[in-house]
Amino acid sequence: MSESAIRRLSLYLRALEEMGDDGEEIVSSRLLAERVGTTGPQVRKDLSLFGSFGTRGLGYAVRPLRVRLRDILGLSRRWSVALVGAGRIGAALVAYPSFRERGFEIVTILDNDPEKIGTRWNGIAIGPVERMEEAFRRNPAEVAILAVPAEAAQDAADALVRVGVRGIMNLAPVRLRVPEGVAVKHVDMAVELESLSFALRHLVR
Amino acid sequence: MSESAIRRLSLYLRALEEMGDDGEEIVSSRLLAERVGTTGPQVRKDLSLFGSFGTRGLGYAVRPLRVRLRDILGLSRRWSVALVGAGRIGAALVAYPSFRERGFEIVTILDNDPEKIGTRWNGIAIGPVERMEEAFRRNPAEVAILAVPAEAAQDAADALVRVGVRGIMNLAPVRLRVPEGVAVKHVDMAVELESLSFALRHLVR
Repeated sequence: MSESAIRRLSLYLRALEEMGDDGEEIVSSRLLAERVGTTGPQVRKDLSLFGSFGTRGLGYAVRPLRVRLRDILGLSRRWSVALVGAGRIGAALVAYPSFRERGFEIVTILDNDPEKIGTRWNGIAIGPVERMEEAFRRNPAEVAILAVPAEAAQDAADALVRVGVRGIMNLAPVRLRVPEGVAVKHVDMAVELESLSFALRHLVR
Repeated sequence: MSESAIRRLSLYLRALEEMGDDGEEIVSSRLLAERVGTTGPQVRKDLSLFGSFGTRGLGYAVRPLRVRLRDILGLSRRWSVALVGAGRIGAALVAYPSFRERGFEIVTILDNDPEKIGTRWNGIAIGPVERMEEAFRRNPAEVAILAVPAEAAQDAADALVRVGVRGIMNLAPVRLRVPEGVAVKHVDMAVELESLSFALRHLVR
């Protein structure tokens, strides 16, 4: 599945959750498409990949589709998350309410700044990054958010792989090398801005 | 062009910039692919969309390709950027060195918190968001980074469109409605984590 298709699944789920809260039971592909900013045929194509949820002429049953999407997106379980790097971006993420709502729970925070170590964020004491193994023995995490400077990112990623992390959300502006079986999702804010400037270049004269 | 193709162009450019710094003049599609984590044929396909840069059997000339990629990505000019929302994520972004390096210069910062208004970030005095028009008259910006809470995002986006912003990088977890001719790039950290958990679901048993 393409990255943009997975993104659309996330957005369908959000729309369905809002609808469920409003008590709606059935949704047409056209309405779902409108909410997500795509087309009806695209919705039907995306959702048909995971079995048949719809009733022709009626639409999709909100509740079962929501359950299935949560499952497809790996959200029907809890993920324990370690944050490595307690800087500004890390602070923003720890405060992000959607993380916990989606089943991602930050259980460990590590940094190398002696001034930060021992202080608490969201009730979690920041630990020294060089004692990662110990921290993971106490609070194991399958997922890590890597929010360290570029030059520290690869070493931190290697250490995370050694302690058993299977997925890394990398916020450092550097490409990580990881062994097979470890997933990396790179979020580079400059790349995001560049894809905006790519679009702007064709809009702004 | 697909979102992932535009992302790859950004990554090719980064790799080429590093190579240029090291004094390399020619790069093969295979080597470029390695640096970016894709395949040689994919590199050749992506780059062929923008004209012929390569010499068969030799490779690509680093410098001209770099210039062309900067131009394609809208990076051969400066963009003035307004930051709306001086919270933690805003603070992280203002401190992000790559933004300025890529030609994005934050010229205006707006917030609605009286405690923040008047304080300086990176030499810029934070202004009141309700005086957006005035702020833009003084320091016009084509691009805005929207880092406000979800419930404030649409109103702020409407105001940005009224003062002439053509591109919005939206960090609020909500879908924006904007008129045609305005580009929106939505960066939702929870969606990013979900695409990681989608991958993890197939890796972790």
